[in-house]
This record gives sequence, C-alpha cells and structure tokens, in this order.
Amino acid sequence: MMLPYSVIGEGHPMEQRISIVTLGVKNLAASRRFYVDGLGWRPVYEDKEIIFFQTEGMVFALFVRDKLAEDFQANPATFGLAPMALGYNVRTKNEVDPLMRLAEAAGATVLKPARQATWGGYSGYFADPDGFAWEIAWNPDWHMGPDGSIHISVPNKKTS
Amino acid sequence: MMLPYSVIGEGHPMEQRISIVTLGVKNLAASRRFYVDGLGWRPVYEDKEIIFFQTEGMVFALFVRDKLAEDFQANPATFGLAPMALGYNVRTKNEVDPLMRLAEAAGATVLKPARQATWGGYSGYFADPDGFAWEIAWNPDWHMGPDGSIHISVPNKKTS
Repeated sequence: MMLPYSVIGEGHPMEQRISIVTLGVKNLAASRRFYVDGLGWRPVYEDKEIIFFQTEGMVFALFVRDKLAEDFQANPATFGLAPMALGYNVRTKNEVDPLMRLAEAAGATVLKPARQATWGGYSGYFADPDGFAWEIAWNPDWHMGPDGSIHISVPNKKTS
Repeated sequence: MMLPYSVIGEGHPMEQRISIVTLGVKNLAASRRFYVDGLGWRPVYEDKEIIFFQTEGMVFALFVRDKLAEDFQANPATFGLAPMALGYNVRTKNEVDPLMRLAEAAGATVLKPARQATWGGYSGYFADPDGFAWEIAWNPDWHMGPDGSIHISVPNKKTS
C-alpha cells in the first residue's frame, strides 16, 4: 500500500516516541498534594495552571482541565474522549505541519490546526481513531537530545 | 509534614518515571491501521488483544478497551475517568506492595489490589485524585535499565 507518511515528501517517518503525557486535573493543589507531597515527585516547573515533572527523557504534566480543554479546543464539559493528551515534540518548527498532514492522511481528526502558541512555540492537535488527543509541538525553550529525549530548561518559578 | 512515602519504611521514594502509556481502543485493527500503516510506527509485539511499541526507554500500548477495563476492574461502559492507564514498573516483585500502600496513603483509590497476573508478573492499580489509573507492575519478562528505562524482550509473535 501507499503509506500515508509519503505525504510528508521526505524520507523521515514519525519517530517512535512520546515526549509528554499531560493529565487534565480539576484541582491543581489537590493533584500537587498527591504527586508531590504524597508520592514524593519533584516539579521542575510550576505555576497556577500547570506543573511539569521531568522524567527520564520525557515530561509529565498536570494541567488545569479547563486550560487543557482550551488548548485543544475541546468542550470542557465532555472533553472529547478523555481529559488528557499525549505530546510529540519536534526539533524544528517546520516539522510540525508535515506531521499534522501525515496524521490527517492516516485518518486523524484535526482538533486544532498548527499555529503560533502563546508560550512561544508552534503546535497543533489531532485526535487518533478513538479520540485520544496528540499534540505535535515545537518548543524552542526545551532541549531535545539526539535520541528524542526531552529536557525542560525553563527557569523554575517556584518549588517547595 | 510527615511525607506519606515514609509508610514504605525505606529510604526510596517512588522514582520519577512513566514506564508505559496504555490506551484502551475500540477496534485494534483500526488503531493498527492508524499507528502502524498511517504513522509508520513498528510494533515490537502484537496479538489479538494488544500491540506494544517500544519507544525511547518506555512502552506505548494499544489494548482492546474491554480487556483494559477488565485489567483494572473498571466498568467498560463508563470506564471511570478515561479508557487509558499509566504504568510504573519496578525491578523486583517486593517493590509493588509498598508502592500501592504509598499511593493509598497519599490519597489514591485502590482499583485493584496487587496480585499475581496471568501474564506472569505481579501488579495492582490505583486511581489518582482525578481518577486516572496507574498500574504498579513487576514484569519479570521485561528488562529495566539502571535509569528506569524499560525494554520489551518478549518474542514477537507477529509483525508485518
């Protein structure tokens, strides 16, 4: 068969990785008590809307549900399939659009066409056949290793 | 404050990692078409119920929804919060129970107390404050690196 990833017109299919797992949470303080005070995880960055944890080559994020819904334009009441998203980060901005086209050609539903993000990057969201949201993102503030591992390098506003 | 992880009575809090992201899918063949034929990802193992992809130090799994529901004893109609689970794998069987107690002390709801698994390991599930399911698992067939990265080493029944 003709593989849909031929649509990107390059020799590189999507790499096999997950950069971020983001859970949409109702109460960030309660989630913080659980993961930080309870399980002992240490945030690398946090503010009133989001908490980032650096894991081995990946990022785990707790994001206020309504903000996550806004981010992928979901109805915050129903939230599509689930209040969470997987992220796939790329090294350069110009990798985002071809990957969004690749996903669409593969049967994904585009939730948000790629665009400039308020946080300084460029990203779009699609839903897989079950409705799970994936973000394809270029984030100039985060470092990506040769193996695709991602490392948060933003300054930490607050830790405790 | 007294950190709940003192309940495990050892010097080791939970490490900061995610070993597996499992999505519960309605139609495994449709998911396969999307991720394998569409995005170009290559399974490391697959059968009629589950497809495993090896990512950088982690595993991404597509698991038939009803089987995933059965695995954490969710109602397959409502599925708790979301038809997906995060996994935290450990190196030795005797790390599972203390981590289940740690999570419970931190406010988690135990979905399935840890027990022998049909696949040869030992695992339990808890839900975080929002209801997201986490599995704490010991899997003697999978290799875990010193950094917590996980590598599937089961024979591949079928690839294409």
